[in-house]
Amino acid sequence: MKHAKSSGGTKANLLFRQAYEYIVTRMDRGEWQAHDKLPSIRLLAQELQVHRLTVFRAYQLLKQNERAYVKEKSGYYVSPCKSEEQALNEHEESPRSLTASSVLKNALSEIQQIPVKYQFSQALIDPNLLPNLFLSEHVKQVFDIYPKLMGTYSSAQGDEELREYLCRYMVRHHHLRLTVSDILITTGGQQAIDLISRIYIRPMDPVLVERPTYSAALDIFRQQGARLVPVEITPNGYDLAAVEKLMQKHKPRIFYMNPTFHNPTGYTVPAAQRKLLVELAERYRCLLIEDDAIHEMYLDQPPPQPMLTYDTEGWVVYLRSFSKYVAPGLRICAVMGGPSVIKPLITAKSLADNGTPLVNQKMFLHYFESARIQQHLEKLRIALQIRKEIVEEELASTGWHWISPQGGFNLWLRLPDFIPVDRLLEECLRHSVSFVPGVICDPLKEMQSWIRLSYSFVNEEHLRDGVRRLVDIAGRYGPQPQ
Amino acid sequence: MKHAKSSGGTKANLLFRQAYEYIVTRMDRGEWQAHDKLPSIRLLAQELQVHRLTVFRAYQLLKQNERAYVKEKSGYYVSPCKSEEQALNEHEESPRSLTASSVLKNALSEIQQIPVKYQFSQALIDPNLLPNLFLSEHVKQVFDIYPKLMGTYSSAQGDEELREYLCRYMVRHHHLRLTVSDILITTGGQQAIDLISRIYIRPMDPVLVERPTYSAALDIFRQQGARLVPVEITPNGYDLAAVEKLMQKHKPRIFYMNPTFHNPTGYTVPAAQRKLLVELAERYRCLLIEDDAIHEMYLDQPPPQPMLTYDTEGWVVYLRSFSKYVAPGLRICAVMGGPSVIKPLITAKSLADNGTPLVNQKMFLHYFESARIQQHLEKLRIALQIRKEIVEEELASTGWHWISPQGGFNLWLRLPDFIPVDRLLEECLRHSVSFVPGVICDPLKEMQSWIRLSYSFVNEEHLRDGVRRLVDIAGRYGPQPQ
Repeated sequence: MKHAKSSGGTKANLLFRQAYEYIVTRMDRGEWQAHDKLPSIRLLAQELQVHRLTVFRAYQLLKQNERAYVKEKSGYYVSPCKSEEQALNEHEESPRSLTASSVLKNALSEIQQIPVKYQFSQALIDPNLLPNLFLSEHVKQVFDIYPKLMGTYSSAQGDEELREYLCRYMVRHHHLRLTVSDILITTGGQQAIDLISRIYIRPMDPVLVERPTYSAALDIFRQQGARLVPVEITPNGYDLAAVEKLMQKHKPRIFYMNPTFHNPTGYTVPAAQRKLLVELAERYRCLLIEDDAIHEMYLDQPPPQPMLTYDTEGWVVYLRSFSKYVAPGLRICAVMGGPSVIKPLITAKSLADNGTPLVNQKMFLHYFESARIQQHLEKLRIALQIRKEIVEEELASTGWHWISPQGGFNLWLRLPDFIPVDRLLEECLRHSVSFVPGVICDPLKEMQSWIRLSYSFVNEEHLRDGVRRLVDIAGRYGPQPQ
Repeated sequence: MKHAKSSGGTKANLLFRQAYEYIVTRMDRGEWQAHDKLPSIRLLAQELQVHRLTVFRAYQLLKQNERAYVKEKSGYYVSPCKSEEQALNEHEESPRSLTASSVLKNALSEIQQIPVKYQFSQALIDPNLLPNLFLSEHVKQVFDIYPKLMGTYSSAQGDEELREYLCRYMVRHHHLRLTVSDILITTGGQQAIDLISRIYIRPMDPVLVERPTYSAALDIFRQQGARLVPVEITPNGYDLAAVEKLMQKHKPRIFYMNPTFHNPTGYTVPAAQRKLLVELAERYRCLLIEDDAIHEMYLDQPPPQPMLTYDTEGWVVYLRSFSKYVAPGLRICAVMGGPSVIKPLITAKSLADNGTPLVNQKMFLHYFESARIQQHLEKLRIALQIRKEIVEEELASTGWHWISPQGGFNLWLRLPDFIPVDRLLEECLRHSVSFVPGVICDPLKEMQSWIRLSYSFVNEEHLRDGVRRLVDIAGRYGPQPQ
């Protein structure tokens, strides 16, 4: 891959790039197939609400990349697919910002599924840190309590007993006014993001996203054809004046945010900003998707209250991946919000899979209710603190830059410009070390020098060895002679 | 509700109705919100590939139903939502064929979730017929075999051990050429239908569906904005000449079919037709979605081989809901097909929920491998046979019409014209009896006199009592005086 900087952020360029990606996504999903006629420039420009010249430029680039061909006096047609190898070679030769999204469509999942010894790309709890024996014994009881569990479906909205318990839990911990009907159970947080995006995003709709952010969310929004509008996130949260300007200008219907132990940076949006953000959301009628995957995974002290607690008008939809640090394999997420959001989501969920399996919900509930859970969380926090310190110790001499997070699973590392992160990753994978290249977390695909290193998944010994190996490999790249 | 017959099947009317439903669906899903400007007639006509007059008529009806309003010299705008009560009243007054899809959006799931004693709307195995104790004990062992199961994710494509087992199973039973990479695990068959429809259906795309068919599939296709093209299914299968004509004329990208113990009719498409259908699919480049939910639930003899066995070119994608008659609560479906179908489906699955929970896959595999399973199936077939006979006995004197199915869970009953099925259902629900009104299974929404009665879910005693109660209530409606 080339390391040329992206041609940058002018609005015309951004729209052009997004139009190109929109077309390529449709081709890759097989919606526009080999030898299909592409829409006329005029029609597509109308549909995407961009200038005809923008579509023209996108079609020209498709032609250049041999993704489309022209028939005299007829229009543009989809070229037949090249083999995967050819496609990869093509990728080598064209600007990465234009081809990356099609090649890296499920980038995170692809990286994670490469088997390596030093797995730093998984922002998941090390299974050895879970109370496996206790959990298994506990869960077995569930079949005694509900002997017909294997034959019973859940309602689409989710098991009522579980929703009642989570409702009480949220009221107790966050002093919310919430009822059982305000909660929907989904199979993991990612399904919740996907269902929301299916309801709220039409092609070329503007969607506010943090920069950087959770890469799978970006892939989901792109799949819906969204136009991504980045909001920078810093250790101090957002620049609220900038957020307001973006809301004014783009009138986005949603802002996807991860304000607590943010993925990938670990930053937390301060309490003072949360209230103001909810006010902005109300004023500009922009739904805030508050993804709060790991609220309990703080190190020293609990994070600020969720933005949901400031919401009175129904402009926040809150995702809490409850099973994440208890029994992540069960994939239990709770979505909370006002009826105007939850009702269409229940319909979408019922069409998508007719409800999360009841057996998972009951197993989760039974364990989550147990007194042991607080003990487990305490131990987990200490284990994560130790792991974070190991990594920071090993990185201390590198000169790399990071802000030590107050919770979560990741370090967000800025490497010196002369280290080519994509080549580093390839080399690391060869040495059984993996991490997430920052560029896939960036809606603009420009953060070439950043990486996300998850310290939650591997044990202390492997963590130390693996980070040493990473630092060692990175050390082979020196500053380039001028 | 009124019982006026639909205005019928002329093409212009069908397109008009579909255009109207397309718009209403987008409003109901909140994509087009109160006071949003609707697309211009010209633009929408282009997008939907219909005549402008068709869109004009749809807009006029929206205005009439107070779903849209007009601004002089500007265009049509979305009216603010009425309360649910008002919407229901409106429904009373407008032609049911035009409003039903929005009101009955998840019709089946809504009916099923009404708690009744005589539950004839669930095409599911009675949980009491499952070997619950054995199943629970067996499943508990899974946690001993895989102690870290609760902390481990599956790959998006599904557990490799499970896919290997199912691959061998399919090769053994159906002499298929199939590899592990041709299989994707989804959370139930419905998720598979949904993922396929997301990849293959764009707004107003023609989709072939049987008439009648599984109503949730219709709802999924409508959600994607499909134009439903009905194919009549009879005890002898399809009229292949008619299918070919429809393929020629509409060039559908998919044909959703359920050829074995068809839901709701119980019909099975004969072996001789299966090969020819695959040839048609190849010739007209139409992907066949073969939904084979209950292949093993035959009464006397096994059904013909799946259509997948005739496919050499990758024009069949096969859905097998393996857990349905073993442990339906686990929600394990296997999707099988060529790489050109399975690869984009894996991406869609990875974006939708990042993989079916591993714990469900391992629990299912462990039980499905056990020797006990064949015994269980034998018992199940006998139990279903007995239940079917009870219902047929109780219905013998009614004069209602049905074809006795050779497998499956349902009777598809034709009631006399003078019995208003919607009022019958209301009355039955008041008396704790539920069934599925045939009209929701009909893509044309015209099968007013049919009902689906599932005999699989309630025990023999309740079955007899409930059917008597149903017959008794139906008896209150006599032929109307001329």
